[in-house]
Amino acid sequence: MEIKLMKNILSANDEIAAQNRKHFAERRVIVMNLMGSPGSGKTTLLEQTLTRLTDKIRIAVIEGDLFTAKDAERIERTGVDVIQINTAGGCHLDAAMIQKACESLDLDALDLLIVENVGNLVCPAEFDIGENFKAVVLSITEGDDKPLKYPLIFKESAVTLLNKIDLLPFTNFNLQSARRDVSTLNPTIKIFETSCTRGDGLNDWTQWLLERTAI
Amino acid sequence: MEIKLMKNILSANDEIAAQNRKHFAERRVIVMNLMGSPGSGKTTLLEQTLTRLTDKIRIAVIEGDLFTAKDAERIERTGVDVIQINTAGGCHLDAAMIQKACESLDLDALDLLIVENVGNLVCPAEFDIGENFKAVVLSITEGDDKPLKYPLIFKESAVTLLNKIDLLPFTNFNLQSARRDVSTLNPTIKIFETSCTRGDGLNDWTQWLLERTAI
Repeated sequence: MEIKLMKNILSANDEIAAQNRKHFAERRVIVMNLMGSPGSGKTTLLEQTLTRLTDKIRIAVIEGDLFTAKDAERIERTGVDVIQINTAGGCHLDAAMIQKACESLDLDALDLLIVENVGNLVCPAEFDIGENFKAVVLSITEGDDKPLKYPLIFKESAVTLLNKIDLLPFTNFNLQSARRDVSTLNPTIKIFETSCTRGDGLNDWTQWLLERTAI
Repeated sequence: MEIKLMKNILSANDEIAAQNRKHFAERRVIVMNLMGSPGSGKTTLLEQTLTRLTDKIRIAVIEGDLFTAKDAERIERTGVDVIQINTAGGCHLDAAMIQKACESLDLDALDLLIVENVGNLVCPAEFDIGENFKAVVLSITEGDDKPLKYPLIFKESAVTLLNKIDLLPFTNFNLQSARRDVSTLNPTIKIFETSCTRGDGLNDWTQWLLERTAI
């Protein structure tokens, strides 16, 4: 019963996602769906990414949160336009929420739209929002077993960021095993090791992102 | 549309949860629903908890995971009976899954049943499984803004474990502010600061848990 209802919800979502995707392509804006667990470091990574890219390309951000505008307020301080979506307890963003949020954005004036999804390693991966690609942030402190335990999000993503790499010495995270598992799940995925406190990997990551907007 | 479907799913779940609760009470077994983000440290905490309690009370564990039996295998090594539930991508455990898993357990021979939910700070809090109380594990590395961003799980829980407290010096986590936010959301919640690598707080936590089974 629950599975059948879920299928209906997903197929209605896919229709709106297809409309979004067409709309984005016509306006030549690249859309990234940024996902990860609560506390994996998505917002801090986003702040660092914006700081490095706003003089090169035109970017806006959509922030998804259950409640509060805490993350949107942080992004606003970087000077980038940001739209807050509150899901009121909902565990993911869906295509209709993105469609509605885009009514408040001038897409023609953008090169890149970054959507920071609700902190959740499960549900956001199931909902297409019409993005060009998905990115998943995994914090070192979450443990190296997470790719195999939460495979869908790694299968669906074009890129994974192994974040908080500066905390590696204080954990038992096996970097080699995590990289191998991610690549086994998704052989074409790009992997970056990043630290927003020390700066590791941020230039390589933002360069890669910049190249995606030139495609 | 989606909200209405969700309401139907939740009310069907509540009926089965009520059956579970009655069943547990008749057999005098206390049930804890253990929740938290992926990588918050639930399984390691559970291993440490079992080590401290198995000579005092009779315990079994139900492990919820999307895929794999990695966590169940870890629990099995402690010598405690463990049932694995694979949700095949589902983002939470529901009352029917617990009802079915309990068919394989001799509840009369138990004092405490611990259910480790799917790693997710959102959805598990919405689904009553018939437990006596919920516990939420928040890792220091997730950030001190998480209670206000994910309020439901803190409102619903009887206890929160601020885990990986040994990593506090390497983060900007504000302990005072996190404790205040958790207590504001839920004035009666019990808070423990724990570290499974150093052992902080584990005796206090397991003592508290032990007292719950004597109620």
